[in-house]
Amino acid sequence: MIDLDYLAFLENILTENRKEKFLKVLQNRTHHFTVAIEDVFQLHNTSAVMRSCEVFGVQELNVVEQKFGKSIDKEIAMGAQKWVDIKKHETVSDCIASLKAKGYQIIATTPHENDCLMEDFDISKPSALFFGTERDGLSEEVLAQADGFLKIPMVGFTESLNISVSAAIILQNLTERLRRSEVKWQLSEEQILEKRLSWAKNSIKDIKRIEARYYAERTV
Amino acid sequence: MIDLDYLAFLENILTENRKEKFLKVLQNRTHHFTVAIEDVFQLHNTSAVMRSCEVFGVQELNVVEQKFGKSIDKEIAMGAQKWVDIKKHETVSDCIASLKAKGYQIIATTPHENDCLMEDFDISKPSALFFGTERDGLSEEVLAQADGFLKIPMVGFTESLNISVSAAIILQNLTERLRRSEVKWQLSEEQILEKRLSWAKNSIKDIKRIEARYYAERTV
Repeated sequence: MIDLDYLAFLENILTENRKEKFLKVLQNRTHHFTVAIEDVFQLHNTSAVMRSCEVFGVQELNVVEQKFGKSIDKEIAMGAQKWVDIKKHETVSDCIASLKAKGYQIIATTPHENDCLMEDFDISKPSALFFGTERDGLSEEVLAQADGFLKIPMVGFTESLNISVSAAIILQNLTERLRRSEVKWQLSEEQILEKRLSWAKNSIKDIKRIEARYYAERTV
Repeated sequence: MIDLDYLAFLENILTENRKEKFLKVLQNRTHHFTVAIEDVFQLHNTSAVMRSCEVFGVQELNVVEQKFGKSIDKEIAMGAQKWVDIKKHETVSDCIASLKAKGYQIIATTPHENDCLMEDFDISKPSALFFGTERDGLSEEVLAQADGFLKIPMVGFTESLNISVSAAIILQNLTERLRRSEVKWQLSEEQILEKRLSWAKNSIKDIKRIEARYYAERTV
């Protein structure tokens, strides 16, 4: 449960603009889609996908880090990770199992399968969108466990796009359609309160001292 | 006028697959939209925009190179420039004038103008889409001379995307809608023949020697 008094106390420290921005952004956040990326060799790709999640309102990014232990941590400077929840998984299997348990269908985005063009993709089901690197594509495991495939229609000689570009195109297209649909894609009231609290904490310098003092004064 | 006998002679040298691929790609090429980029400081951005033109069927890319003389030439290795026509302009004014003379409306893509969201953009008019860098945006001149603006809807904290990502999203969205529309967007027969000829030439090693011999034998 969220401590509403504490939330009110913290939000009182923020500017009006900031508070309004948080509410506006949160009204557009979704868990209806989530994104998963397998070991991305080039760190700037991870940042770029994270940024697209942020811009198009996808609140959670799953990252499988079998080979590269602490890569995301190095990216802290980029900014977007303050506003997108990064969920790390040690193996692809863990990642898939955890997403399936939450009710997501596993969607492999790949230029090599013709099953479903982006425009025809049914946005009504909660979906976890897996992106692989341009060089290696998605792992066999994701392809084998996928409930569906998704492809960006391409009409030139080039038959693939880099991961940051594909992720941006797909997230823009699917979230735009989602917002215009009847699907209930918004965060729950509880989820919004949780994010308001964590974003307020993220935005306040010296939050540890302030939090300690708040609870100290309260227990007197 | 295209020398049809010479075209037939050259296409005879290509494999069937290659010839078919050319025809298929050309059926999806368009001059209805063209792209223009102002001095792009990072060369990989130019390549990325060129690649999006190639993938989504935009045949011409205009590049204003006021500050950087021969930048595009260095990019020859990338591949896409074989299939996309690069038109260089020395100044933004030249570029705008030449595009207007061809009947294009000038569209400034920028996150800072709310005039027209991408989804509402009227695709029926021939449009030259100007992209600026994320750092500097478009020049005052483009903004002043623009017939319209175009913005990707964004719902997060981040208020801009890098040029390669914006160009990819916009080109994918507009060309997809164009293909499903009643607009006559395809290349003319003459334009297709011209590209068949230049692509055949691009694909044949030793083309200079072959061309010389062909015309030498013919004039005997």
